[in-house]
Amino acid sequence: MQTKSENRCFGGTQGVFTHASKATGTDMTFGLFLPEEAATGPVPVLWFLSGLTCTHENAMTKAGAQAFAAQQGIAVVFPDTSPRGDGVADDAAFDLGQGAGFYIDATQAPWAPHFSMERYITRDLTDLLASEFPLDMDRQGITGHSMGGHGALTLAMKHPGRFRSVSAFSPICHPTQSDWGRKQFAAYLGGDGSAHDATLLMRDRGFDGPVLVDQGADDQFYDLLNTGDFAAACAARRQDAQVRLHKGYDHSYYFIASFMEDHVDFHAQALYA
Amino acid sequence: MQTKSENRCFGGTQGVFTHASKATGTDMTFGLFLPEEAATGPVPVLWFLSGLTCTHENAMTKAGAQAFAAQQGIAVVFPDTSPRGDGVADDAAFDLGQGAGFYIDATQAPWAPHFSMERYITRDLTDLLASEFPLDMDRQGITGHSMGGHGALTLAMKHPGRFRSVSAFSPICHPTQSDWGRKQFAAYLGGDGSAHDATLLMRDRGFDGPVLVDQGADDQFYDLLNTGDFAAACAARRQDAQVRLHKGYDHSYYFIASFMEDHVDFHAQALYA
Repeated sequence: MQTKSENRCFGGTQGVFTHASKATGTDMTFGLFLPEEAATGPVPVLWFLSGLTCTHENAMTKAGAQAFAAQQGIAVVFPDTSPRGDGVADDAAFDLGQGAGFYIDATQAPWAPHFSMERYITRDLTDLLASEFPLDMDRQGITGHSMGGHGALTLAMKHPGRFRSVSAFSPICHPTQSDWGRKQFAAYLGGDGSAHDATLLMRDRGFDGPVLVDQGADDQFYDLLNTGDFAAACAARRQDAQVRLHKGYDHSYYFIASFMEDHVDFHAQALYA
Repeated sequence: MQTKSENRCFGGTQGVFTHASKATGTDMTFGLFLPEEAATGPVPVLWFLSGLTCTHENAMTKAGAQAFAAQQGIAVVFPDTSPRGDGVADDAAFDLGQGAGFYIDATQAPWAPHFSMERYITRDLTDLLASEFPLDMDRQGITGHSMGGHGALTLAMKHPGRFRSVSAFSPICHPTQSDWGRKQFAAYLGGDGSAHDATLLMRDRGFDGPVLVDQGADDQFYDLLNTGDFAAACAARRQDAQVRLHKGYDHSYYFIASFMEDHVDFHAQALYA
């Protein structure tokens, strides 16, 4: 692991690191905010999975999470959204290939050799965090935005017992019924991706902990997200869940920042319970 | 004036606008955060002047000001740092020309035709804000970062009665004694720029209101900023001022974000007094 940068931030440290990943067969970059409390012992950790076109950097600089994570004494990890590099497959579209890993493990050419973002997050990066940083891996929460909201919800349900709480901003809730999902599942998996659909996972499996979803009612991508389907699945299951619609808000980081405090506080309550 | 974008943000709106400026002879772009309260009447306004290489956008997306401005019911305006465009003079160095206006009015070729950032801020943009937005121009505060901290301190002292409070993050405090100042004053003014030096202005004139300066003690540009000279000038004058040094913090937006709440609260106290 190499340290790319470290900046003092809200009494803690915002770092950026690179490491070689077996899952992706590439070097991967991630951001990690460590609160002041990490200097004296392990702290809980919140994952933030980013959306289409983002790197590790967007949420780290624009979501405002560090202010509230510092207040709660929680670390925040900002992974990249895909493998990258000259030897890695890509596509001209912004929603396929580099910057669009969808947090699943591709089985199809040309994606299979590198696009294993589920294994990257849940194995390689998890192991690295556990061994290199003062993090209490028994206290993990996960959140994300858009494609990363899909990632957070699906990884939380596919890996029961790993995350105590899950939340999402403007998540892709029902990708098997959306142009943000069908195309990517066909390309990466050659199939319909039902095993990686938050609404279907909620219907069939649910989550053993609290769920929070925030969605802008004036999101320009509203029809691609299917928030209502996920809310209905939560209701059918009597899941411990809040799905909130916010009038006037769109899909941008301004929306994320506006409700970040609520999300960090939501996770803190679960992580310190 | 043209609206480039508007995003709902912390109950208010983050807008980006362009307008033709007489002072610069170019179109200029700025950001303006309006809190929820602006819907029902004029609100106080805080100026944020950015540093070298920045546009209107950096602070708008990375400084985290909107969260606290929304809490206090204050608007925040994010001007650009210079005129821009193909017909505007520039220099290969990052600290001269486009992105480096220094908030002064150039008198020398090739800069004089467009580089009039003091007139742009204090006349053109001020007039536009007053006429187009629900702002209480009797309640203005000003802050900024690095070159923009120099801008905030000097504009506040050069235009007495206009700003009720002034603060700065990592400001260039004594540009006539720094490589961030001498070079630019020589180029833009053909002189030494003593009339635009925060330390000299504090020594000779002072500010009729409170002053707050925050500085990272591990700033990578520490020796260019001369914080101690400004602090000494404040002390000599018995100025109502706080100059704070923060161990471990550097020159980045992570430093700005970490102390933004203090600055917004500081201005709110003066603006609502």
